[in-house]
Amino acid sequence: MDHYNTEDAIFALATAWAKSAIAVVRVSGQGCIGTLSRAVKGRTGERLNSTGTNRVVYCRLFNPKDGSDVDDVVVTVYRDGHGYTGEEAFEISCHGGLTVVTAVLQLMSDLGFRQALPGEFTLRAFLHGKMDLTRSEAVNELVNAQGRKGQLMALNRLNGALYRRIGQIKDIVAEIMSIVEVQLDYSEDEIGEDLTFPMDRLQKAIDDLGTIHDSYNAGRLYSQGARMVLAGPSNAGKSSLFNYFLKEERSIVSAQKGTTRDYIEAMCTIRGIPVRIFDTAGFRDLSESEIEEEGIRRSRSLVESADIILYLADSTDPSEIDRSVVHDPRCIPILNKVDLNDTDLEGFLKLSVATGQGFNELCDRICGKLTSDIAQADDGSLVIENERQREDLARAMASLRSAKLAADSGLPLDIVSMDIQEALEALGELTGEVTTDDILDRIFSSFCVGK
Amino acid sequence: MDHYNTEDAIFALATAWAKSAIAVVRVSGQGCIGTLSRAVKGRTGERLNSTGTNRVVYCRLFNPKDGSDVDDVVVTVYRDGHGYTGEEAFEISCHGGLTVVTAVLQLMSDLGFRQALPGEFTLRAFLHGKMDLTRSEAVNELVNAQGRKGQLMALNRLNGALYRRIGQIKDIVAEIMSIVEVQLDYSEDEIGEDLTFPMDRLQKAIDDLGTIHDSYNAGRLYSQGARMVLAGPSNAGKSSLFNYFLKEERSIVSAQKGTTRDYIEAMCTIRGIPVRIFDTAGFRDLSESEIEEEGIRRSRSLVESADIILYLADSTDPSEIDRSVVHDPRCIPILNKVDLNDTDLEGFLKLSVATGQGFNELCDRICGKLTSDIAQADDGSLVIENERQREDLARAMASLRSAKLAADSGLPLDIVSMDIQEALEALGELTGEVTTDDILDRIFSSFCVGK
Repeated sequence: MDHYNTEDAIFALATAWAKSAIAVVRVSGQGCIGTLSRAVKGRTGERLNSTGTNRVVYCRLFNPKDGSDVDDVVVTVYRDGHGYTGEEAFEISCHGGLTVVTAVLQLMSDLGFRQALPGEFTLRAFLHGKMDLTRSEAVNELVNAQGRKGQLMALNRLNGALYRRIGQIKDIVAEIMSIVEVQLDYSEDEIGEDLTFPMDRLQKAIDDLGTIHDSYNAGRLYSQGARMVLAGPSNAGKSSLFNYFLKEERSIVSAQKGTTRDYIEAMCTIRGIPVRIFDTAGFRDLSESEIEEEGIRRSRSLVESADIILYLADSTDPSEIDRSVVHDPRCIPILNKVDLNDTDLEGFLKLSVATGQGFNELCDRICGKLTSDIAQADDGSLVIENERQREDLARAMASLRSAKLAADSGLPLDIVSMDIQEALEALGELTGEVTTDDILDRIFSSFCVGK
Repeated sequence: MDHYNTEDAIFALATAWAKSAIAVVRVSGQGCIGTLSRAVKGRTGERLNSTGTNRVVYCRLFNPKDGSDVDDVVVTVYRDGHGYTGEEAFEISCHGGLTVVTAVLQLMSDLGFRQALPGEFTLRAFLHGKMDLTRSEAVNELVNAQGRKGQLMALNRLNGALYRRIGQIKDIVAEIMSIVEVQLDYSEDEIGEDLTFPMDRLQKAIDDLGTIHDSYNAGRLYSQGARMVLAGPSNAGKSSLFNYFLKEERSIVSAQKGTTRDYIEAMCTIRGIPVRIFDTAGFRDLSESEIEEEGIRRSRSLVESADIILYLADSTDPSEIDRSVVHDPRCIPILNKVDLNDTDLEGFLKLSVATGQGFNELCDRICGKLTSDIAQADDGSLVIENERQREDLARAMASLRSAKLAADSGLPLDIVSMDIQEALEALGELTGEVTTDDILDRIFSSFCVGK
């Protein structure tokens, strides 16, 4: 496939496509600085060519095709072996107007550079050995992090924490493998009885992989946010509670309408846990005739996929209350408007959105519901959030368990050896030592362009 | 006022607030690099302190307040006298996720840097003599440029074209002033008759200022785009023509709904001229009852402020055609759907959005309407787009005209001298040699933050 050929130079806008003070265009590939120097006015072209790595040069860009000016820019020069990709590369910091950015991108294209595919800069960094696969994925996970804790977890992986941990476990598995190989190659007489199968170490490897594997739920929670749906009868105060969350908790993404008019979604953090709140109230505001099949379907699917359901009842209108919700383990039943009618209801949390009464307890309860998932994440240990990594870990664990079963059952060591080999391959795929174009495609295509 | 005190260090996000591969945070102020080095892990902190100007350093940021990691970043170092502001400064290139950006901005605040006001970096560049006012304004105009030509004009001014031209004219005026001063200080006997009042040079200065002053219309057209409104009866094909423009001409901003539902606006370029097209058709799609007073008012105001009105008539429904529009100089009357009914109508341009017939001629006519304004911009000469600059030019011209009248009328030279002095002051304000905080506030507050 073309993009595993790193012979050509690629370019992309690395900052967002929106007007701003400055924008950054990234280019990477052998000879790209010499090519750019032809589009730089005056002596700064020569200066650019002789500039050492990690230095910036202020210059005027022009398009050699028609001689027209492009922009006054700052170019950061990275020589071969330096910078993000490990290739000769540069970054152009230009004025952040969309017209300017368009002109700079056009110039890059006119100079013969190729528009980069999503994740292609990081792919090149991987192909040039600047980072393993888990670190490459951490780059993307860091950009997409939804909250402070998810960000720290991703930063930890970017720092190589997962790579090193997997390396340690792989060393243990490789050691087990070497013992098996010795037993396969030599007769029992030759090696003596003291070299027994290291069952304990095998179990330890399985357990260690299991710990990382099981951190996935917490990782996913922090990376994507818990899904919390507001439900309950009309006029129970769902929209008011929705707005209260946005006001009280630090909202990192503002409220936005869904593509259809059936719900509103907002992102906020509750006790440091990122939570996506879905309010179906907008849906209910529509007249009966406007409620379409599709809308109802989506609303139901929201409730079905929720991690937490806040069922809001109106204490001033007890007839509407559905008491069966207390049996749903995902549900937190809430009796709202207790400032107007201070009653108790078994299994229901007393709340007044109007006065704020009960809100702290509600946040505690929400965290409580998520506690089992987040316990692991709180001790600062390694956490993964990546489905591919989880799959590779599961494969490695399954192979090691199979090896253990074979060894326990006294099956020939060839079979044990094959299982352990499979586990080593799964771990190799995890870090990218063993990989295929398909796997790389799947990983890097989810990146944003310019990364 | 506080922000004319450049003693403290300011920070701002210089790229857009949206998820992207990378984001850039800018900091400027004496001692800021030393402060940042306290938030950098390991030996790179020392390295940062000893790094020379215009060099980049890769390092891990952490928050010294709680010891938590922030991000792996690239820091570009600018020592005193270098860089954009002319102060000690740095730029942090961090991962472009909003959580990461939030953490980096929080760190800047925790380190004691102050959030920059709009345009404050450029204000500092001005206060440190890195650029005059016309160049400072060109920075903002470049970021806001709506099309390639507007961009080139702004780049020309950023390059100091306006500053130099004003300088030349100011030299002439200063020379006239010195002649007047000589005549004021010495008696006619002492200086002889050959030193007459340089009426020709005064007229030349007025003419030269006039040329720049009159370029304002073209400049504004290119910087803000011509306003073109689609009008005409329902079903005449306004929305189809709107979409045809977006498809055929390079649209640099995608179509967007107005804040109310009364019109849709899109930006495209026609023969290189930026044009904002307004389609009121969305408004007409609403039922009668939904059309509110406010909507009608806005629609009318659109037509009133239009540079060009495309009046679209339906050739298959002649009864609906308003023939009086041919008398409006801003109006281009169009007979659409001539593929269905090929008739002629005096003063109307024949068009078929369905087949594309007549579209090229329509574009020619649109350019023709704008020709008088854009003629000046086409010969590559200096063009302004800034209302403040236009006002200063007008004031300088008025003072010089007044001086000429006084000299013509044989009024005492003291009066002539005062007028010329006023002209010099207006030109000094234009480039920023003479300025007040009020003027600076007005200029820089329109900038985006981070510039």
